[in-house]
Parts: sequence; structure tokens; C-alpha cells
Amino acid sequence: MLNDIRVVLSHTTHPGNIGATARAMKVMGLSDLALVNPKKYPAAEATERASRATDILANAGVHQDIESAIADCQLVVGTSARTRSLPSKLITPRKLTEIISQQPDRKPVAILFGTENSGLTNEELHLCHYHVYIPTNPDYSSLNLASAVQLITYELRLAFAETDLIPSQEISENEMPVNREQLAGVLAHFDRVMRQTGYLMPDHEKQIENRMNRLLNKAELTLSEMNILRGFLRSIENHCQKLSQQNQ
Amino acid sequence: MLNDIRVVLSHTTHPGNIGATARAMKVMGLSDLALVNPKKYPAAEATERASRATDILANAGVHQDIESAIADCQLVVGTSARTRSLPSKLITPRKLTEIISQQPDRKPVAILFGTENSGLTNEELHLCHYHVYIPTNPDYSSLNLASAVQLITYELRLAFAETDLIPSQEISENEMPVNREQLAGVLAHFDRVMRQTGYLMPDHEKQIENRMNRLLNKAELTLSEMNILRGFLRSIENHCQKLSQQNQ
Repeated sequence: MLNDIRVVLSHTTHPGNIGATARAMKVMGLSDLALVNPKKYPAAEATERASRATDILANAGVHQDIESAIADCQLVVGTSARTRSLPSKLITPRKLTEIISQQPDRKPVAILFGTENSGLTNEELHLCHYHVYIPTNPDYSSLNLASAVQLITYELRLAFAETDLIPSQEISENEMPVNREQLAGVLAHFDRVMRQTGYLMPDHEKQIENRMNRLLNKAELTLSEMNILRGFLRSIENHCQKLSQQNQ
Repeated sequence: MLNDIRVVLSHTTHPGNIGATARAMKVMGLSDLALVNPKKYPAAEATERASRATDILANAGVHQDIESAIADCQLVVGTSARTRSLPSKLITPRKLTEIISQQPDRKPVAILFGTENSGLTNEELHLCHYHVYIPTNPDYSSLNLASAVQLITYELRLAFAETDLIPSQEISENEMPVNREQLAGVLAHFDRVMRQTGYLMPDHEKQIENRMNRLLNKAELTLSEMNILRGFLRSIENHCQKLSQQNQ
């Protein structure tokens, strides 16, 4: 699906924003970029801000008018910071992903972004089936163009990426959580040493044991952490034993 | 809640990213920025990229070390493009908002962002209760620093903004959808004109009527659109009447 979504930048003023858009797209796995009458392009600043996403720039279509950039698109979506006098209903970026997933055959999808200063023109707005509004601070809604692309492509990736959202962490055995038997062993060890050092008193014994149990449960103790705690407890026992022997 | 979330940029290399971060934060309604040992700051490029979010820069704390930037924080979250050898579990940005909303009194919250090239140091990673991983293209995960801030603050705004996500559109009466009676009136009018022009034939009459009904339902016809269609239909009737009279 991500391959069937075209980002269309119309009359972009700053070439840096074109490069930053390419980078934002590639990071989220999109590749189809169309430029309509960019003010200054190609430009060194675009290449620089694209980081290593220059393949997206190299493959970007450059069009004289918006109609030719979206001619083959079955779903056309505008992005707008405006909320009044729009020719159709506003939806959130998340809602957009729902609409696309409900009509997966309606492709390619074009998502239109207007100029940095004034957004899409009225003519462009009328080409759109939907208008996406990115929720922003009502007192400061100055969202950067490439940031707007980043947010929408992020939602698209969450909805349509075919890989896991979070790569598996390949946890080593030592970083696996302990089982109850191992946890009970640690608690019993604490108990023994606390008795030995005189910290456990009959009147608060049960309370301390419960608190220690809760603390280690909350910590989601791993094997390696268990080994540290038990090693420390053993060192206390050994040290105390040595001191006792010296005293004899 | 958004006021209780601190964005912490550690050892940022490019001052432009600090400015772009301020803008990204303000757009989503956050204001608490802390800088730990920025390489070059203050800097003209930071101010420029901040657009009109310079108040965030002016109020940003500048710290010599990360501990002092987060000393008062009850929840510390790292951001990481790494997925291996992290000292704690990875969560998505959306999961982070759940964790924060489940423990609303655990504040301030610090969200740490490391350097552009290598992210957070091992020492910094160990300060964190959680690690946020932003889902990216596994073949190109080069997310810009300010874009990472933008994505996470966007999720925070979706979760914690106290204003409506989409401002109400104040739809004028003319843009309200028609009710069934009005729609039935349009359909009857089409029916009448289609009969008159000889388009409706007994063998497909019902099918055409159903299709027109479906079409106008899908279009979610508004009052002003209804008036256009009925005006057009009336003009056909008048025009035909005139032609008939001339023929007599």
C-alpha cells in the first residue's frame, strides 16, 4: 500500500523542504514524490536536506500543473491548516488511514501539500475527496511542510507497514525475567541475611517481606539482576562470617 | 499534561535542529525545552528555524549534564533508533501516551533525545524508565531529530490536548446535508425529466431510479447542491417547453 501513495508538493517555495520531504517519506517507507511547479528545483539545498534519500528526488516527477500530477489517482486528499470554507469535510490523519484501508483498491492515492505560506489554492482544494487536518496548537499552528509530510507518512506506516512496528529485541537468556521459584529464592535469601544482621524484627517481619516481594515484582527482575542481588547477599554472609571468625 | 512534559536535547550538533525542535513543540502545545551541552548555542540558525517559536528557546534551560536537566522528573523516557542492548523494553510513541495517562501524577516527564549521529549514550540510556522506538523503514531509519520530536509531540497532543482535535467547521445552512424528503423530491424531479426526455424506459426504469438514489446518497447531497440540481432540471423542463411551443 505504501508504494501506492503519492506525496504531491505544489508550488513549494523552499527547496530545503523538498529534500526534507524526501527524507521524511523514505524513513516511513514511501517513495512516490511528485512536484508541481517548484519555485527552485533542482537545488543543492534539496539534495542536502534529503540526507541519503536522494533516490526519491531522482525519481520524483516534476509537473507543470496539478491535474497532470494526479491524473491516474483514484483518491485525492488535501492537507489544510484552514478549517473554514473548505469544499469537503475535515478528517484527522488517523481517519485517513481508515478510509484508505476500507477502500484498498482505490489507488494510487495522492496526498496534496500546498505552499509553505498559503497552503493549497481554492482550485486545488476542489480536486480533493477529503481534507486532512493535523491537530495543532490553536495559538500556533505553524507546522513545517516537511513535518506535516512526516506526521502523515508516520500514520500511514503505522497502518500499512508490512514489517513489525518494533523489531524483536533478541533478548539474551540473562535478560529474561525470573520465574516465581527464582524470585522466591531471592526473597528467602534476603530474609536470611536480614535476620542475620538483625534488621528483621518479629513485629514488622511480615510487612518487610511483603514489601520486598512487591519491590522485586515491580522491578520485573531478570536473571542477571537476580545473580547480582544473590552475589551481594552472599558477600554479606561471607564478610560477616569472616568478622565473626576474627572475633573468636 | 502537555505543560508537564519536558523535551531534553542532549549534545545536539546542529543548532538548526534546536530551533526546529522548538517549532515542533510549540505547534503541538508543549513549551518545556531543556538543552544539555549543545555544541553551538545560542545560534542564528536556531532562531531562524524556530520560526515564531522563539519564546520556547528563550525559556529553554541550558545544562552542563543530563542529571541536572532531569533532576525533578518522575518519569524519564529515552528515544532510540537502536533496538539492541537497550537496558529496558521498547515501546511505541502511542504506548508512551498510555503509560503517561495511566500515571498522571508521575510528573514532570522528561523525554530524552540524543545526538543526531549516535543518539543517546549508554549512560543516558540507563537513566530511562522506558525507551520509545519510532517505527521506521528498516532499510532507511534516518529520522531527523526535529522530526522525531514532532512525531512524539503529535502523539502527546492527540492524547492530551484539551481542545478539540478538529475545530468545528461552522457549516452554513446551505452546506447541511438534505433530509430524506428533500432527496426524494430531487429523485422525483429526475424521474419526471427523464420520462419527458425519453431516457426512462419501462424495462430499466426501476434500475435507473435505484442507481440515482444510490449516487445522490453517496454524494451526501447538501441543500445548495440540491438547489443546483433542481435548478438544472427546471431549466431542462423550461427549455423543452419553449421548443415545443415554437414547434406548434
